[in-house]
Amino acid sequence: RRGEMAKSTQLIDNEVFRAYATYTAIVLLKMMLMSLITAYFRMTRKAFANPEDTAAFGKGESAKKYLRTDADVERVRRGHLNDLENIVPFVGIGLLYALSSPELSMALLHFRIFTGARILHTFAYLIPLPQPGRGLSWAVGYAVTFSMAYNVLKKVWLV
Amino acid sequence: RRGEMAKSTQLIDNEVFRAYATYTAIVLLKMMLMSLITAYFRMTRKAFANPEDTAAFGKGESAKKYLRTDADVERVRRGHLNDLENIVPFVGIGLLYALSSPELSMALLHFRIFTGARILHTFAYLIPLPQPGRGLSWAVGYAVTFSMAYNVLKKVWLV
Amino acid sequence: RRGEMAKSTQLIDNEVFRAYATYTAIVLLKMMLMSLITAYFRMTRKAFANPEDTAAFGKGESAKKYLRTDADVERVRRGHLNDLENIVPFVGIGLLYALSSPELSMALLHFRIFTGARILHTFAYLIPLPQPGRGLSWAVGYAVTFSMAYNVLKKVWLV
Repeated sequence: RRGEMAKSTQLIDNEVFRAYATYTAIVLLKMMLMSLITAYFRMTRKAFANPEDTAAFGKGESAKKYLRTDADVERVRRGHLNDLENIVPFVGIGLLYALSSPELSMALLHFRIFTGARILHTFAYLIPLPQPGRGLSWAVGYAVTFSMAYNVLKKVWLV
Repeated sequence: RRGEMAKSTQLIDNEVFRAYATYTAIVLLKMMLMSLITAYFRMTRKAFANPEDTAAFGKGESAKKYLRTDADVERVRRGHLNDLENIVPFVGIGLLYALSSPELSMALLHFRIFTGARILHTFAYLIPLPQPGRGLSWAVGYAVTFSMAYNVLKKVWLV
Repeated sequence: RRGEMAKSTQLIDNEVFRAYATYTAIVLLKMMLMSLITAYFRMTRKAFANPEDTAAFGKGESAKKYLRTDADVERVRRGHLNDLENIVPFVGIGLLYALSSPELSMALLHFRIFTGARILHTFAYLIPLPQPGRGLSWAVGYAVTFSMAYNVLKKVWLV
């Protein structure tokens, strides 16, 4: 039994899996960064969503005016939601792909392009860059995830 | 080392895991489709969230009027968010369930019902079907995920 | 082949993985609970997002007045989205961490603190508690996920 246990955790020694772990950690940390950017803009723009968050700025009516939406805050929040919509499929499908014995070079290509595309997407959203900058970076990440899904389904299809 | 590596990637040969991989790829691709439907409605309804997205329709005031919400766009976005709220737990709990050595037939039953329910949910949301069409399809997917979580916790409980 | 298959599913016998499975199931179920709380507030406050959801309250104009936002409903929805933003990274990075052979005691510490922090965060959001109650519980969960990501990257870094 101990032997079993030791073996089953060795997945982390597989190079494709290590690549998956590296890039998944990077894109998830990048996504988490959006929370800090949102908090930064909420505080500098004084634009909050909850009454209890404005208590530090005074009581009653004087604090109520900070319960508002702000264009910069909303922009970061849209970027964050777009991350969720695109990074969740990458993490899920990428895990299946990493476990489907792809070539390391092909796997690295997928993971690197996706990660680069999502970092570009964040810059394109927050600067903001003129279109089709953001649209293209979104589409590249989308296509990479689609390509991984195709490779997974080709190997495991069991309906 | 090579032997280890070869072994650790064989998870993909496990039939329950292949079933999980198949249905997870399908529901995540279905969720990704919501992005394309949102883009389609944003373009046909000319309803955008970012000033840089409307630049193609003219400059200044003439483009500003396309910075608006549209009922069809918002409906797809609600469907997309509902997918995130329900497919994320399925992918996470489903992985644990697939690794907990369930019967293949039981696993297929869970994965198939969930996938069918979420596809129905999308149609119910976008057509839209009268209630309780959408509510029931949501509840069926919810119950399947709950059942998998119960099976996982029964086997692994380690607090 | 059968031997391989049997072996690959034994991950569930690994104690760290069992701990990961337990706490991941718990936090995902907690997140799913937010859907039920949203539904409860939508029905008791009679505040819906879709016309088809208000049909039970009458036809035409008399039902239209229930298509509105409500402060309590929006509060639960913000809590739900915050769960998605924070529990998704925990589930993804936590899986990589659980597979990177950490000490069981350290792994349990990470998983328990995160789970406790997210349960506190929900109470702090819904009661609501005065700040910095919600902010601190959010920060603790965030720091735990960050610590796991650091441990993963230290072990697997393959760029």
